[in-house]
Amino acid sequence: MKFDPASLRFDAQGLIPAIAQDIDTREVLMMAWMNEASIRRTLAGGHVTYWSRSRQAFWAKGESSGHVQTLVEMRFDCDRDCLLLLVRQDGPACHTNRRTCFYTAVREGAEVELMGPRG
Amino acid sequence: MKFDPASLRFDAQGLIPAIAQDIDTREVLMMAWMNEASIRRTLAGGHVTYWSRSRQAFWAKGESSGHVQTLVEMRFDCDRDCLLLLVRQDGPACHTNRRTCFYTAVREGAEVELMGPRG
Repeated sequence: MKFDPASLRFDAQGLIPAIAQDIDTREVLMMAWMNEASIRRTLAGGHVTYWSRSRQAFWAKGESSGHVQTLVEMRFDCDRDCLLLLVRQDGPACHTNRRTCFYTAVREGAEVELMGPRG
Repeated sequence: MKFDPASLRFDAQGLIPAIAQDIDTREVLMMAWMNEASIRRTLAGGHVTYWSRSRQAFWAKGESSGHVQTLVEMRFDCDRDCLLLLVRQDGPACHTNRRTCFYTAVREGAEVELMGPRG
């Protein structure tokens, strides 16, 4: 069946959450939001473009930092309301210069930082 | 630092997205929503409890299906507005009886189903 981005289920703001996972390490790198246009851009260009809710603008990942995400495969879930992006991540995914945004764990009731910048 | 679930950033509905990842295979299994109370339940009981937006009720994963998610570690991202749950998944995570909810890929513009039920 032909894939039509409009067939996905977007929220009231026209957005859908997108999880980026490193294709090699399988690490979950980040979660951000896409709209229909950013999905089309990502599929057409091969580099991941999110929608910035704070700026209300396209957010071509790595545009300013150089830490580009190259799309290897886009998947979506059973409810068609969440995306999984398998990517090759150039440099750190997180704006804090960490490999992943998920660098804080809850252990025995305490916050534990799992890696430092560039970790 | 002591972890306080109230320190996370919830949306206008008091919810935060939670990504479940298989601790062994590193497969991303599903994305669902939690509120502060379901986070506390999950941390206290060790089994993952989401918040069902459709039913507006706790959703103890596996309560009816038996396909329980046991929490190994909870992590959160740099913006404190998304959770990553490392879990041991008993049986399939998806209500369609597939291992993961993300069983459909976009390949050359078409939808491709990557696995069948129990696949």
